[in-house]
Amino acid sequence: MTDGVSRRALLGGGLAAAGAGVGALAGAGGTLAAQAAAAPPPDESIDLSQSHPFYATAARQTQGGIETPPQRYCVFMTFDMASTLTTDLQVLLARWSAAIAQLQAGKTIGTVEPSHGAGVGADTGEALDLGPASLTVTVGLGPGIFDERFGLAKHKPAHLAAIPALPSDNLDASLTGGDLSLQACADDPQVAYHAIRDLARMARGTATVKWTVLGFGRASAGANQSTPRNLMGFKDGTRNIKEPADFSKFVYLKDDAGWMAGGTYQVVRKIEINIEIWDADVISDQQRVFGRDKVAGAPLSGGTEFTTPNFHKAGDFNGRAIDPTAHIALAAHENNDGVKILRRSYNYTDGLNQYGQLDAGLFFAAYMNDPEHFTRIQTRLGASDRLNEYISHIGSGVFAVPPAPRSGSYVGEALFG
Amino acid sequence: MTDGVSRRALLGGGLAAAGAGVGALAGAGGTLAAQAAAAPPPDESIDLSQSHPFYATAARQTQGGIETPPQRYCVFMTFDMASTLTTDLQVLLARWSAAIAQLQAGKTIGTVEPSHGAGVGADTGEALDLGPASLTVTVGLGPGIFDERFGLAKHKPAHLAAIPALPSDNLDASLTGGDLSLQACADDPQVAYHAIRDLARMARGTATVKWTVLGFGRASAGANQSTPRNLMGFKDGTRNIKEPADFSKFVYLKDDAGWMAGGTYQVVRKIEINIEIWDADVISDQQRVFGRDKVAGAPLSGGTEFTTPNFHKAGDFNGRAIDPTAHIALAAHENNDGVKILRRSYNYTDGLNQYGQLDAGLFFAAYMNDPEHFTRIQTRLGASDRLNEYISHIGSGVFAVPPAPRSGSYVGEALFG
Repeated sequence: MTDGVSRRALLGGGLAAAGAGVGALAGAGGTLAAQAAAAPPPDESIDLSQSHPFYATAARQTQGGIETPPQRYCVFMTFDMASTLTTDLQVLLARWSAAIAQLQAGKTIGTVEPSHGAGVGADTGEALDLGPASLTVTVGLGPGIFDERFGLAKHKPAHLAAIPALPSDNLDASLTGGDLSLQACADDPQVAYHAIRDLARMARGTATVKWTVLGFGRASAGANQSTPRNLMGFKDGTRNIKEPADFSKFVYLKDDAGWMAGGTYQVVRKIEINIEIWDADVISDQQRVFGRDKVAGAPLSGGTEFTTPNFHKAGDFNGRAIDPTAHIALAAHENNDGVKILRRSYNYTDGLNQYGQLDAGLFFAAYMNDPEHFTRIQTRLGASDRLNEYISHIGSGVFAVPPAPRSGSYVGEALFG
Repeated sequence: MTDGVSRRALLGGGLAAAGAGVGALAGAGGTLAAQAAAAPPPDESIDLSQSHPFYATAARQTQGGIETPPQRYCVFMTFDMASTLTTDLQVLLARWSAAIAQLQAGKTIGTVEPSHGAGVGADTGEALDLGPASLTVTVGLGPGIFDERFGLAKHKPAHLAAIPALPSDNLDASLTGGDLSLQACADDPQVAYHAIRDLARMARGTATVKWTVLGFGRASAGANQSTPRNLMGFKDGTRNIKEPADFSKFVYLKDDAGWMAGGTYQVVRKIEINIEIWDADVISDQQRVFGRDKVAGAPLSGGTEFTTPNFHKAGDFNGRAIDPTAHIALAAHENNDGVKILRRSYNYTDGLNQYGQLDAGLFFAAYMNDPEHFTRIQTRLGASDRLNEYISHIGSGVFAVPPAPRSGSYVGEALFG
């Protein structure tokens, strides 16, 4: 690059403007001012040969796709059981588990060309030449699995219940709930889609697909990842859970959870963002809404991205530097009885909406040892978050995520006697 | 990987089965048979720091996104002009050109935080920390640009006209046409989406968005790329144009094309695939439909992937080894007066359709020096292609793609006197 500044060439703390003015009209190729931000160049390359084990190991008893550093793409799908036979549910979980183990290792789930072509392929084949691409598929069990149909009520996880109505809800029934969930994340979109497609195919006759979201460009950081940005242009995940101690304390269930020990709860929300309205807002207001500087990500109370926000510091927004109704103020663990949840969200777009506007948003996915923690935080956010003017919660789901199966077992095997 | 075979561990020519049987039910974690195929490990890593120049260079007078090795992700969008002022069109093309040059270099298109936050950001910011990711944005001009509105009829490219009705058409008017097209391809989906979003934002008041497709996992190979697979699981692009001589002969316009010299035509089709029906078909029939082996990609007349198909060889399918109504037979240049087109397609999914089935297909994009070449091939395919049972052409567009502008100029400047 010979002129201007690369997106990643500046920064380090707060500033950012390089060049001047707001995109001069550039009648005939004049250069537009550019603005850049960069920590150490993040993710300069993606290694598609990496794989994650599916079965529990000595070091890890939890399913992948929770603590796993967020991959670039995600396909999430929920299913309702069509069969009321407990054995059908059991067989489906067993087949899914065996298949996921293969897929995460970069293998097909059975032959593509059985019997020299005379049969139907077990695997649809479109990922044949692709690497494992860090695929993880996370299996969740919705509240319906523990209703009267399958005789499993006695095993119902202690905190599994439908999310109650929340102040921000604008839910579409066709994007809500599900008896089962699959979250497939990979660094190659074709690998993620192939996994969900072939697992959905296995479910035919046993369960029907309910709703799905295709996420990209992750919008929450894991440990050792630079903080990605949501489609509002802000860094998302700066204060996410990253320390092992916090995973133990806030995410995974302990031994007293019985068969769910090492498991967790998954809460998902499809959050539509009115990005065309957002884009017309002045930056100072956008920053007030989040409570952070847009480019650097520093809290408006000062410092750099990872400086702890000072919610008491005096300032111009309702008397504070960080408005008490800013998103980071309402969501902060300091203001929620110390509660933290692990966010693992992705951006999504569904193209255009019925008004011809860009249809996009956030597929919010979070893991926690009690879904009430999400409900508690979202109740506060839904009531007074300054973001509410721009977003709408249109989809929702809650699932129990069992621990990873031992090799030779399958997800949820402990349920069946 | 310790057991089975990786997806990329076998092959080299024709065979592929590893392990036996069709995904044994694997009651409790039994291993499923796996099938693998691999040329030299393709694309083990993706380098997101790569960038392509936008302006013409001594070595290249054509826009990017045509000959550029297909990136992993594509966002395509068309627009209708809302303004009938010729100067508005001119300003839009100029602003787009200046912005694309910035974006392809990995820069923002103006500051994200103008005037210390008191203004509206020129760039929405979500790509701030990301590399250029090999972004290319290709600008096309639809037939409507040369109608009576803008006084440009005298400059109309010789072969630019709406694609006539074709036997396979099942077009949705809301997915068809457009006065302008933008094809953004990148190896990071957020970089591609950011580009289209911010360019669409620039068009506000001048042009309105018409339709869009989000493509992934490219489904056509460029030179030096291993052949990717479409969502039917078959390699796509084995016989694509790769030689420079073929680009000159079949893709780019020559000096007699006046202001369009070095340009080309873009034909796009949104092709829905009934993948759930396809997945239930026996492999031998799938192979007959394409005329190729599914795993290895070799023509059914024998050899390996890149062996020239022998359409005369005797066999069991209507008397031939490759059925005369197989896709590769009908599409082959040998059977179409020697005509070739450059395909540059992507897979897409729109989630679920109204029947609760997986909604997916192919975003077919092709470049050629006369759209009649596409029409000729597709007329034959639409009439008798064995694929027709599984696919439906639901969207369509044709655009003139001007040559790359010189630095200091903009796409289509030659139109305005």
